[in-house]
Amino acid sequence: MQPLRVGLIGLGTVGSGVAKVLTESPQRMTHRAGRPVELTRVAVRDLKKRRDVKLPSDLLTDDPLAVAGASDVDVVLELIGGQSPAKEVVLTALEAGKDVVTANKALLCAEGAGLFSKAREVGRCIAFEAAIAGGIPIVHVLGQAMAGNQVTAIEAILNGTSNFILTEMLQRGESYDSAVREAQELGYAEADPAMDVDGTDAAQKLCLLTQLAFGTRVTPEAFPQQGIDTLDLADLQYANELGYAVKLLATAKLIDGKLEMHTQPTLIRHNRPLAQVDGAYNMVALTGDAVGPMWLSGQGAGQMPTASAVLSDLIDVAIGRAQSTFNRLDLWDERTAVPVQPAEDIYRRYYFRFPVEDRPHVIADITGILGNHSISLASVIQHEAPEVDDTDTSGAPIVPLVIMTHRSHEGKIRAASDELNKLACVRQPWVCMPVSD
Amino acid sequence: MQPLRVGLIGLGTVGSGVAKVLTESPQRMTHRAGRPVELTRVAVRDLKKRRDVKLPSDLLTDDPLAVAGASDVDVVLELIGGQSPAKEVVLTALEAGKDVVTANKALLCAEGAGLFSKAREVGRCIAFEAAIAGGIPIVHVLGQAMAGNQVTAIEAILNGTSNFILTEMLQRGESYDSAVREAQELGYAEADPAMDVDGTDAAQKLCLLTQLAFGTRVTPEAFPQQGIDTLDLADLQYANELGYAVKLLATAKLIDGKLEMHTQPTLIRHNRPLAQVDGAYNMVALTGDAVGPMWLSGQGAGQMPTASAVLSDLIDVAIGRAQSTFNRLDLWDERTAVPVQPAEDIYRRYYFRFPVEDRPHVIADITGILGNHSISLASVIQHEAPEVDDTDTSGAPIVPLVIMTHRSHEGKIRAASDELNKLACVRQPWVCMPVSD
Repeated sequence: MQPLRVGLIGLGTVGSGVAKVLTESPQRMTHRAGRPVELTRVAVRDLKKRRDVKLPSDLLTDDPLAVAGASDVDVVLELIGGQSPAKEVVLTALEAGKDVVTANKALLCAEGAGLFSKAREVGRCIAFEAAIAGGIPIVHVLGQAMAGNQVTAIEAILNGTSNFILTEMLQRGESYDSAVREAQELGYAEADPAMDVDGTDAAQKLCLLTQLAFGTRVTPEAFPQQGIDTLDLADLQYANELGYAVKLLATAKLIDGKLEMHTQPTLIRHNRPLAQVDGAYNMVALTGDAVGPMWLSGQGAGQMPTASAVLSDLIDVAIGRAQSTFNRLDLWDERTAVPVQPAEDIYRRYYFRFPVEDRPHVIADITGILGNHSISLASVIQHEAPEVDDTDTSGAPIVPLVIMTHRSHEGKIRAASDELNKLACVRQPWVCMPVSD
Repeated sequence: MQPLRVGLIGLGTVGSGVAKVLTESPQRMTHRAGRPVELTRVAVRDLKKRRDVKLPSDLLTDDPLAVAGASDVDVVLELIGGQSPAKEVVLTALEAGKDVVTANKALLCAEGAGLFSKAREVGRCIAFEAAIAGGIPIVHVLGQAMAGNQVTAIEAILNGTSNFILTEMLQRGESYDSAVREAQELGYAEADPAMDVDGTDAAQKLCLLTQLAFGTRVTPEAFPQQGIDTLDLADLQYANELGYAVKLLATAKLIDGKLEMHTQPTLIRHNRPLAQVDGAYNMVALTGDAVGPMWLSGQGAGQMPTASAVLSDLIDVAIGRAQSTFNRLDLWDERTAVPVQPAEDIYRRYYFRFPVEDRPHVIADITGILGNHSISLASVIQHEAPEVDDTDTSGAPIVPLVIMTHRSHEGKIRAASDELNKLACVRQPWVCMPVSD
């Protein structure tokens, strides 16, 4: 049978992993794909760089667009990341009549509408299992295995770096800064971890999942997004004492015909599977109207897990399955789109930690404001440790006040927060996190 | 577009669930499948029986073979279970040029080789996502999403009835018999639960998973199989004290070019995801050489979860994806088959509970036999409760002796067991369970 000729663009961590399997296990690929899968061209940024994977030097070029348009390439693997030249690479490949496999969530989140419509126009496909949750086959599961269902809820841990940092902080009693340094030393976090720890990465992945599950095109600006970079070890410890783990949770739930969406550090009861995901792992918890609740977990990043996702897409392209799937996905196709609920209408429980002055009437002031906004309290704990000896510049002792509320609308929480910010007895920064029930 | 015409055979629990979605959500099916999916014929055993789902009476017949061969049917859903007439139904459908969707693990386990080769011969496909682990899309994941991997291990909880019974026993302190009755009252267990609780159901599903993951055709006789029907509440409680949950675990692991396989009640450390699966849920823990460890869990049985799996197969048939996948599966195709390791060579830790006479030299007798077979002990606990007041017919007090071993070969355990059975101080039945590390 005709081999599938692969043009690989980007020989970084994931690209090297893919190249390794293609060159070292060709029989496996031939067997699974039904025909040989051959690496015919590879574009790299720096031709002189030493690499783990051995490739014939005549395969290499530093011109990605030449690979994307080459006549001896059937499918282009876009593994460079970022917006440019990734967008030009994908467009060039599609216009030259090639299928595309990509791991680029940022590109799809920003430019997906145009790229997918271009692919439809030219009769090619874009496969992107590797763009979300690494080796967890969530695109296959949403696009195929759950096709008989209306998905009603997604709750997911999609950023392994953040989950690693949160796990280290609580288990070792480390500060946020120290856990970030450790994640960097172990290769779990980039030199600049901003996109991971501020929630951007998880929010972009949530947008793609929302497209697949609900046919709704949404960008991260449309829903509340918060990262773990504002959290204190104390919050993880108080939550733990109260019976909860804190996870960076990405959520999209279908409620009364609207989508509740957010990506935020969230309290999750210890007995729930999402609370038990530790370290650099990801988990996607799904609910479908037929299948009920379902959980998938595994490594959400890293060389070989992400390469595994790219290879399954490549095999799907070789077999012709990727094309038929692509034509049926609710991708950037507004036929069944569900609107996003205004953030003010989100209805759930909340955790507060206020560093407050240790003097009379403070609790009355704070709970009075919450009460005025009809926010009902489930528990109030004024802890002595660990901040009891702290003093601020005025010399007053500062103690932590931890409050758990009953269910309330986000709009009321925001209005109350504005007033709480004006209270002289409450120090900045104070913390508010939602609870997932 | 041409509708996909469906002949449904069997309108029991799962069949009714499928019929409900096809008749009540036709737009959803058309949207996902790219063309209408129409129920054109339905075979039932008793035409007079009242049913939950409303169907035009001219659709119904009590002749399954007539539906399997009907000219206005494109795909046959075999949902009657058992061997006969299910086998004839599938063969008739294939010979009449129709694709088949089935949830029948017993049929595939016994007759898969012939049925799959017949399907290949006539150029049709057999899809069977619903035959294993209900709504968990394990066939999709093994057949497609992990296609770039060599699977190296599967450990799975595949029988929801057994898992429900084990959970109830430990959590409520119930006896095995009382938990079985409760499972029957709640509809989790059949009137005759033998196939569930003796491990047959899980072993059949493991055979199918082994085919998909390792290309190895194996029947349950080829590996150790034990059910939960021999367990005592005391064993679950002792295991729990030692830090383990007991689960009916189906295992296939690639070790040095051979497959270690067994389906047995097994001790699993509390902190592992498999130990945390409670109630009527299933979990499949997989390892792939690229993707690393991965976990999938959800409802392993029940009307709508199983219907969800049937519907996804039906959509795959409508799109043409099921056919291309079927042609690439390592199903009953011995090209890459891996041999099963002899049971004697299985190497792992074991838990023993012996009801023994409370008199001198008993521990020395038992541990002496284990020692003579080079079985090294990790811990020995002679509990006083709950059997301390028991006496047997000879009037001697009987106490439980719980022993955890280090790793040992199953062959040594079997040889030692023969000798232990001859010891006068050991009462029957005594319990031996493996540990999964």
